Amino acid sequence: EQTGLPVITEVMSPDDVELVGDYADILQVGARNTQNYSLLKALGKQEKPVFLKRGISGTIEELLMSAEYILSGGNMQVMVCERGIRTYETITRNTFDINAVPVLKSLTHLPVIADPAHGTGQWDLVGPVAMAAVAAGADALMIEVHPDPGSAWSDGAQSLTPDHFAKVMNGLRPVAEAVGREI
Amino acid sequence: EQTGLPVITEVMSPDDVELVGDYADILQVGARNTQNYSLLKALGKQEKPVFLKRGISGTIEELLMSAEYILSGGNMQVMVCERGIRTYETITRNTFDINAVPVLKSLTHLPVIADPAHGTGQWDLVGPVAMAAVAAGADALMIEVHPDPGSAWSDGAQSLTPDHFAKVMNGLRPVAEAVGREI
Amino acid sequence: EQTGLPVITEVMSPDDVELVGDYADILQVGARNTQNYSLLKALGKQEKPVFLKRGISGTIEELLMSAEYILSGGNMQVMVCERGIRTYETITRNTFDINAVPVLKSLTHLPVIADPAHGTGQWDLVGPVAMAAVAAGADALMIEVHPDPGSAWSDGAQSLTPDHFAKVMNGLRPVAEAVGREI
Amino acid sequence: EQTGLPVITEVMSPDDVELVGDYADILQVGARNTQNYSLLKALGKQEKPVFLKRGISGTIEELLMSAEYILSGGNMQVMVCERGIRTYETITRNTFDINAVPVLKSLTHLPVIADPAHGTGQWDLVGPVAMAAVAAGADALMIEVHPDPGSAWSDGAQSLTPDHFAKVMNGLRPVAEAVGREI
Repeated sequence: EQTGLPVITEVMSPDDVELVGDYADILQVGARNTQNYSLLKALGKQEKPVFLKRGISGTIEELLMSAEYILSGGNMQVMVCERGIRTYETITRNTFDINAVPVLKSLTHLPVIADPAHGTGQWDLVGPVAMAAVAAGADALMIEVHPDPGSAWSDGAQSLTPDHFAKVMNGLRPVAEAVGREI
Repeated sequence: EQTGLPVITEVMSPDDVELVGDYADILQVGARNTQNYSLLKALGKQEKPVFLKRGISGTIEELLMSAEYILSGGNMQVMVCERGIRTYETITRNTFDINAVPVLKSLTHLPVIADPAHGTGQWDLVGPVAMAAVAAGADALMIEVHPDPGSAWSDGAQSLTPDHFAKVMNGLRPVAEAVGREI
Repeated sequence: EQTGLPVITEVMSPDDVELVGDYADILQVGARNTQNYSLLKALGKQEKPVFLKRGISGTIEELLMSAEYILSGGNMQVMVCERGIRTYETITRNTFDINAVPVLKSLTHLPVIADPAHGTGQWDLVGPVAMAAVAAGADALMIEVHPDPGSAWSDGAQSLTPDHFAKVMNGLRPVAEAVGREI
Repeated sequence: EQTGLPVITEVMSPDDVELVGDYADILQVGARNTQNYSLLKALGKQEKPVFLKRGISGTIEELLMSAEYILSGGNMQVMVCERGIRTYETITRNTFDINAVPVLKSLTHLPVIADPAHGTGQWDLVGPVAMAAVAAGADALMIEVHPDPGSAWSDGAQSLTPDHFAKVMNGLRPVAEAVGREI
């Protein structure tokens, strides 16, 4: 929290919502819980913003329906996140659905976030796909950074070192400007 | 041909290669023929450049193996094209595999083309996905334009009017510059 | 319960496990909760048998890993269920993965159940796919029956009337015998 | 031909149709050519029966539309073949779409064939999936047999030895009888 950045924490069960909400700034729903309706309803009844990921093989419509579960409880602060879908392609871990970015922008007023790390599964693809997501209209990016990806407990292969992250951000700035956004 | 643009014509059968080659500047292999090996071999034995599309559910590796069929015949002028893959998502016609752009750039020296019209199936998504493809490193775009898309014989829903095409190109220029390319 | 049949009830949240366990004979984990690890752990620590469905786009390996979460808690009574996976095919609601039946039989000693209703989404396909599942080695079937499918709250299109169910069972008996099983 | 069995030969190009037709009893269209329309048209104008495989990621509807290309040329002897579709599952080479068997039986009067070898990719799954296909209503099976699968030029992993084939046939007979068919 000393970084000034918001703390995003994943919550997996309705009865964890209150505890996690006491410490995190944003509550995250992971791709395996996008249709955990008990959890979604519990998140609709509290006040912290929710970061909602598309299911591993969820449709765009299902993502929006899951958001409705939270919204209908009264919590209007929901961000929807494209994080790649499962396809037959095996070189990459997931297939980042770039189409989903403009489709979501046209179907909802909620902020559309892109997660290029999960959407590709490889650190060297995070930069190009992050730039693509911004060019296609994404409102924000979630990028995993780790001081030593090789010893990360999870997702090391798709995490950036601080140095590589700085380079990616430098590449992103002119792309954001090109589409009238600012980083 | 009076436009000064190259004429790209799809060829579907080995015995059409010679005739089509007499009139077209570039011979295109469609997504339904990416693994038509007789056709690929015939294209390797002639001199016109080949525009090779990824199969409808082809892997990136299969696309490169299909390119090898042409290259091994002696024709080194092959362009590989990401045009969207078939997934379970139904809002869009295909899922444009943006990951494939940087993956192909890292695996081959062949030019990597993006076809956002087939990759989305909707004219209003062509612009954002074209910008994404350029931001991710695509070397060129194939974009369908029709003076009156509503009366097009095929692919009308994904074709741009000349006016909309001009707007898309205007949006693309700064994105291309942002990644050090020029249109 | 007056039917003498076991009562199977879906449980969606760890804190519901105890209550549902008081009334149901078998606790079911639905396809949207196959990777709800908090729920799986809670089910491992109680004694009622668990009916575990494959995720909507879960791999066979992921299904077995989810079973491990329950088994490692000490509850050895786990049934794994093939219920169709999400593919690009649109005539049917899901694609019943018949390959998964013999694959699961070779990889685990747990009972392998088939759910042809969810695996197809259409009542008229339930019979043929149920027969296929038994022929391929399934240990049991889950079949939805409703006295009036047209007015069912959910899954009406894939539910059988009692009459149709009786016909399906009559068709199943000789197939079961043909593979050395008994109904 | 001395076996008395029909000779089935794959044909890949329109200009091969005549030559192959002189020697084979049945002309096969492989999964990579299901939408090779030039080939389909050429097959519609000759008299030998055609064995038409579903595309690697073809829909059931596309398979029937491809059959129409042959039928509309005047050749009514077309067999349609389910041979597995490409999905995200990686334990098996393809996912045999068992649903397609009853769906095709309800949508067309053409004979419906099952190819469990390509549909699974593993010789030990051929038996169970062949039995499933017959139980679900398939009219015939295509099964690859090789005297020494380990040294087969292609598809060795999914080919049966003559001994294993005999065992599979013995298992199939009672299943066929159970559904009122005869082998």
